[in-house]
Amino acid sequence: MLPTIEWVEDKVVMIDQRRLPGEEVYVECRDYESVAEAIEKMVIRGAPAIGVAAAFGVALGFLKVTSQADADEGFSRIYQRLKATRPTARNLFWALERMQRIYKDSRNLPLPALQKRLIEEALDIEREDVEINKKIGSFGRSLIKTGDAVLTHCNAGALATAGWGTAVGVIRAAFEEGKKIKVFVDETRPFLQGARLTAWELSKLGIPYVLIADNMAGWLMQKGEIRLAIVGADRIARNGDAANKIGTYSVAVLARENQIPFYVAAPLSTFDFSLEDGGRIPIEERPAQEVKEISGRLITVADANVRNPAFDVTPARYVPAFITERGIICPPYQTH
Amino acid sequence: MLPTIEWVEDKVVMIDQRRLPGEEVYVECRDYESVAEAIEKMVIRGAPAIGVAAAFGVALGFLKVTSQADADEGFSRIYQRLKATRPTARNLFWALERMQRIYKDSRNLPLPALQKRLIEEALDIEREDVEINKKIGSFGRSLIKTGDAVLTHCNAGALATAGWGTAVGVIRAAFEEGKKIKVFVDETRPFLQGARLTAWELSKLGIPYVLIADNMAGWLMQKGEIRLAIVGADRIARNGDAANKIGTYSVAVLARENQIPFYVAAPLSTFDFSLEDGGRIPIEERPAQEVKEISGRLITVADANVRNPAFDVTPARYVPAFITERGIICPPYQTH
Repeated sequence: MLPTIEWVEDKVVMIDQRRLPGEEVYVECRDYESVAEAIEKMVIRGAPAIGVAAAFGVALGFLKVTSQADADEGFSRIYQRLKATRPTARNLFWALERMQRIYKDSRNLPLPALQKRLIEEALDIEREDVEINKKIGSFGRSLIKTGDAVLTHCNAGALATAGWGTAVGVIRAAFEEGKKIKVFVDETRPFLQGARLTAWELSKLGIPYVLIADNMAGWLMQKGEIRLAIVGADRIARNGDAANKIGTYSVAVLARENQIPFYVAAPLSTFDFSLEDGGRIPIEERPAQEVKEISGRLITVADANVRNPAFDVTPARYVPAFITERGIICPPYQTH
Repeated sequence: MLPTIEWVEDKVVMIDQRRLPGEEVYVECRDYESVAEAIEKMVIRGAPAIGVAAAFGVALGFLKVTSQADADEGFSRIYQRLKATRPTARNLFWALERMQRIYKDSRNLPLPALQKRLIEEALDIEREDVEINKKIGSFGRSLIKTGDAVLTHCNAGALATAGWGTAVGVIRAAFEEGKKIKVFVDETRPFLQGARLTAWELSKLGIPYVLIADNMAGWLMQKGEIRLAIVGADRIARNGDAANKIGTYSVAVLARENQIPFYVAAPLSTFDFSLEDGGRIPIEERPAQEVKEISGRLITVADANVRNPAFDVTPARYVPAFITERGIICPPYQTH
C-alpha cells in the first residue's frame, strides 16, 4: 500500500503529491492551518484523500484547544477553515460533517477524552476508506476481462484515497485476480495527475500501462484500442450527474460515441443527495499558473488569458453504472 | 505577417518553432539535408508550411548539383529524402510532386536556368499559399459572427503556412472585418502548438484569446461558452475524412454532441483524391520523449510506456463544411 497520509503522534504526515514522481518527499503538518494549506495547494488531492485529511486536520487542530470554555468556538474555527479549502469534492464536507456529529455527541466529555474521541474518529474514517475501496474493487473487477485495455483519467488510486484507490482500485483488483490487462493513463493536464501519480502507482504495482496525452484517448477509442473506461468522482448528484477531474466529461462522450462502457467508481460518501442534479455542483477554478507553467516553466505567452476549471460534470446519461462499496448501481439513479 | 520561412539568397531561413514563444530564434538551412531535418524535428510544422519548406528544400538542394549529367540522380535523391521526412500531411507530397513536374518539364534547360526555374516555382508555391490562405479567410469569415467564441486546436495560423493561416486565417479575417470575437486556444499536447504558437500569434495580432488545456474544451462547450470550432487539416480523403493534429477528432465529436458547428479550413492541396477514405491516411507516431518531457523536463516515471500518435482522423460525418480557397464545401463530399 502506498503512503498517502498518516497520523503520527501529534502530526499529520503526507507525501507531497506535487513533487511525485521525481521526488518522494513528506510534508509534516503540526496544526490545522498547515493541513488546510496542504489541501488548497494540492500537496494532497483526490476526493476521499482530502476527506481523510480534513478529518485529521480537525483532530489535530482540536488538540491545541486548551480549555473546555474555548472548545465550541475552537471547533467551529477549525471546521470553517477546513471547509473553505476546496469547493467541489463532496467527501471533504462529508468527513467534516461526520467529525462535527462526533463532536456534538461527545462535547460533554472532559477535554482530553473529547480530543481522543476526535482522533479515533478520524482514524476510523481513514481505515474505513481502505475497506470501502477494497469492496469497490471486488465489486468492480467483474467488469474487467482478461485482455482488456482500460482507460483511466486523473488519479483515482491509492494517492487519491487513504491508500487503495477507487477507479485504480478496481483495476488493481482485476489485476490481482490474475487478469491480463493494460491501462491507458490520460496524463490529465494541467496538474498531470495521470502522468505523475497514476503512472507512478501502476509502475509500483507492476500493472502494464501506457501513458497518453489527454487528446489521444478519443482516437484510441475510435481505433478499437480501448475496451472500457473507469474514473473516480468528486461529487455525484442524486440523479447520477458526476463531477470529476476536468476532461472526464470528454472521456464519457467519446466513450459513448464509440460504444465503450464508462464507469464511475466512488464510495457513497461522494454522493450528494441534497443536490437534485449536477448543475448545482460548485466547480472550482484554480490559478492560471497551473495552465501556463509546467514544472515551474512558462509554456506560453507570459500574459496569456487562461481558464482553469478543475472539474467538469458528466451528465448521468453517459454513465451506464457506478461502482460503490454496496455494489454496482445502474440507472435510473434518482432516489427519493 | 509573421516570419515562418524565407528564401534568402542561397539559404532557407525559418523561425525555430520549437523555441517559441520564449525565444525568437532563426535557423538557416544551407543544404537540403538541413531542411529535411528541420521538418523532421519540427523546427517548422503545419501542413502548408512543410509543403513550402519541401519546395525550398528541393530548390536549395538542386543548387548544389554541378553537372547536367548528375541532374536526374541528384533531383531524385533530394526528392526522396524530403519525401521521407513526415508521412501524414498531403501538402508535403503535393509540393514535391509539383516541383517534380517542373523539373521534368524543364530538364532540357541548361543547368543554371533549371536551377533558377526550381527556385521560382518554390517561391510561387510560397506566394500562392498566402493568397490561398487569404481567400480561405474571406470565404470563411462569414461563418463567424460578432460576439462568437471560436475554439481552435493546434496551430493552423501564420506559422503553419507561408504566413497567413488557414483556421487562424479565417478567425483573423473575421476579426479584421471588425467582428468582436474571442478565441479559445487548446494548448495541444504533447507539442503545445496551441499554447506556444497560436497564443503567440493571436497575442501579436491583438485578437482576444483564452488558453485552455485540451480536456477543458468539452466542458466549455457543454456550458455554452463556445459557439463554433475551426481547425486546419493535414490530409483530407475523397469522402471528407480529415486527418489533423491529434485531439481534433475529440473536438469534432464533442462539438457535434453539443450542436456546435465544426469547420475544417484547408487549401485544396491538402485533399488527397487518391484516397477513398481516411482509413488509409498514414498516421505518424512520434518519439515517446515528446509525451514524457515538457521543455526538457521529465513529467512522469522515467521508463513509462507511451503512445504518441501525432494525428487522428475525423470522419466526414462530423464535418458540416470545409473552408477552401474555392469556397465553402458542404457534404456530400464524394467526388468522382
